[in-house]
Amino acid sequence: MVPMSSTKIRPIEWREGRVRLLDQTRLPGEVVYLDITDYRDMAQAIKTLQVRGAPALGVAGAYGLVLAAQAITAGDCSAFLASVKKAAVELRATRPTAVNLGWALDRLLRVADQGAREAVGAIHELPLRLLNEAHRIAQEDEAGNLAIGRHGAELVPQGASVLTHCNAGALATSAYGTALGVVRAAWEQGRIRRVFNTETRPLLQGARLTAWELLQDGIQTTLITDSMAGYFIHRGEIDCVVVGADRIAANGDVANKIGTYTIAVLAAEHGIPFYVAAPTSTIDLSVPNGEAIPIEERRPEEVTHIQGVATAPAGVWVANPAFDITPHQYVTAIITEKGVVREPYQERLRRLVGEVQAAG
Amino acid sequence: MVPMSSTKIRPIEWREGRVRLLDQTRLPGEVVYLDITDYRDMAQAIKTLQVRGAPALGVAGAYGLVLAAQAITAGDCSAFLASVKKAAVELRATRPTAVNLGWALDRLLRVADQGAREAVGAIHELPLRLLNEAHRIAQEDEAGNLAIGRHGAELVPQGASVLTHCNAGALATSAYGTALGVVRAAWEQGRIRRVFNTETRPLLQGARLTAWELLQDGIQTTLITDSMAGYFIHRGEIDCVVVGADRIAANGDVANKIGTYTIAVLAAEHGIPFYVAAPTSTIDLSVPNGEAIPIEERRPEEVTHIQGVATAPAGVWVANPAFDITPHQYVTAIITEKGVVREPYQERLRRLVGEVQAAG
Repeated sequence: MVPMSSTKIRPIEWREGRVRLLDQTRLPGEVVYLDITDYRDMAQAIKTLQVRGAPALGVAGAYGLVLAAQAITAGDCSAFLASVKKAAVELRATRPTAVNLGWALDRLLRVADQGAREAVGAIHELPLRLLNEAHRIAQEDEAGNLAIGRHGAELVPQGASVLTHCNAGALATSAYGTALGVVRAAWEQGRIRRVFNTETRPLLQGARLTAWELLQDGIQTTLITDSMAGYFIHRGEIDCVVVGADRIAANGDVANKIGTYTIAVLAAEHGIPFYVAAPTSTIDLSVPNGEAIPIEERRPEEVTHIQGVATAPAGVWVANPAFDITPHQYVTAIITEKGVVREPYQERLRRLVGEVQAAG
Repeated sequence: MVPMSSTKIRPIEWREGRVRLLDQTRLPGEVVYLDITDYRDMAQAIKTLQVRGAPALGVAGAYGLVLAAQAITAGDCSAFLASVKKAAVELRATRPTAVNLGWALDRLLRVADQGAREAVGAIHELPLRLLNEAHRIAQEDEAGNLAIGRHGAELVPQGASVLTHCNAGALATSAYGTALGVVRAAWEQGRIRRVFNTETRPLLQGARLTAWELLQDGIQTTLITDSMAGYFIHRGEIDCVVVGADRIAANGDVANKIGTYTIAVLAAEHGIPFYVAAPTSTIDLSVPNGEAIPIEERRPEEVTHIQGVATAPAGVWVANPAFDITPHQYVTAIITEKGVVREPYQERLRRLVGEVQAAG
């Protein structure tokens, strides 16, 4: 049984053969749910960030593949498998940095392969098998986040002021959140005095999503621009940093939202702990270090326009890397559902997840 | 004679008894000039950042006080002086962090005092004396910036990629700029391979003003969000940082636009030089260190709204310090019109400007 989590926010849910998706591009102004019935619409929703956050992308990709499987009219297993794999290629290509998307698709493809071998002549069973696996991914994610919250809360000192970046909350997962799971658990235990969150330019996931979901749960947060983190850390007003991750390399290097590295350097300079909260599905032992993680470059308009309004002169050059790499030396600990990992990461991450991934 | 500067951008000019002010809140979308005839309108223009930037605030304050002096109808010198001083109090209160505003007003008040002593019965001369002093401040500023450019360009290595923050350009001064004066001079000498500039949240002076004025002069710049500075510095794509200053304490601590400290820490972490370009009028020997510099806290709406559009949920707490302090240990050198100063700042800054300020 999955224990009840303390937030009602559900960014993605399966409901009677279709997916109910909270459109995160409309928050915080409007709470709008999309009704997704076609996997291509799911691919589009992922591309346009209507759903985002590494763990949520895993769940969205899995349900997206179930939608694809439901629609296949092929008469035999190999044709069915070919169609499912084609849809998986399309879904996987939507976002390159978060590993959870590909990881979830791979889980479903293994189920499809195995199902096709076992159930020759019973193709109609396969979509249901895929759906069950997608449900398992979502349930494991929620249970994992509650465990991340428990493990992480122990690291938060009594009366602490905590800074987070971007949104690694309920909105970025199936429920409860990773970094915000730690914040929620520590808040419930009365450990937290104050929460700071960056607005997280260019797409303002901090201002739009983190501030919104914390307010929903009655956790008051102080919103700052990304450029203010140094000011408050320097003044001693922040006791620890907790962020999520989009991919963690075998050596412990962390890919996360652009701006994470800057905060990690500030934390190191001031001797405050820098924690990364992520499920083990975010750990990718196939990439040796951060340099091998692809960094998504997004459209320049995300920088030159804010909510559709131009903020820069036409013709200016723009760079827009969506993520950065924080080398493992800056990471005080990685908080997973299986426990807290510290240096040496290379060895300990392999021990933590090696067997599971090797079995894949 | 003031040599010609290489940019035609003039944010503030005296024209036939009134001030022509480029409204910087409308840039880059519209180039609109305001016609200011009343010192209270100048105070309002300063408060609302229609004119901003430490050296430009000095010039704006000076011309503002001339507008006040022109309008005084007092029949005797002591009544005239009292009115001028009252206007100066109002102008001085508009922005607390930049020292140049108060410094320029003090220069004019000394001229008024001296004029009143010398020209008893000739009150009509006093506004002209103040205007001449205001013109001197503007001319000295422009000449000083050209000198800052010359001194600073020598510090920029051949083929360098330079990062700047906020706007310390022609728009922040009477002409040419301080940090962007260094960029302009180094660009003219063919030393610069690439310019990066941060957008500078919350008020986007980088995106709106720096990108605009560099484009006007044919200097191509790459606009990034504040959160991307760490990414590019970490990748080795930036060779040095040049920023302006709003006030420099006696020990070399620098108050500048929020986010400056973060970039200074990143520069130190990666061993790249961090330069501050500012006229000696920005150095305030009366404050011993950065902690004694008042930090202006501005309205929360600047963070929760961008160009009038809400980006955060209603009810969220917000912090909005407009400046931060960069301790002198992080400052590789301070580039002034009188030359380049390095550690130990305490002694060398006093030697550089001590006599001038002592004479005040």
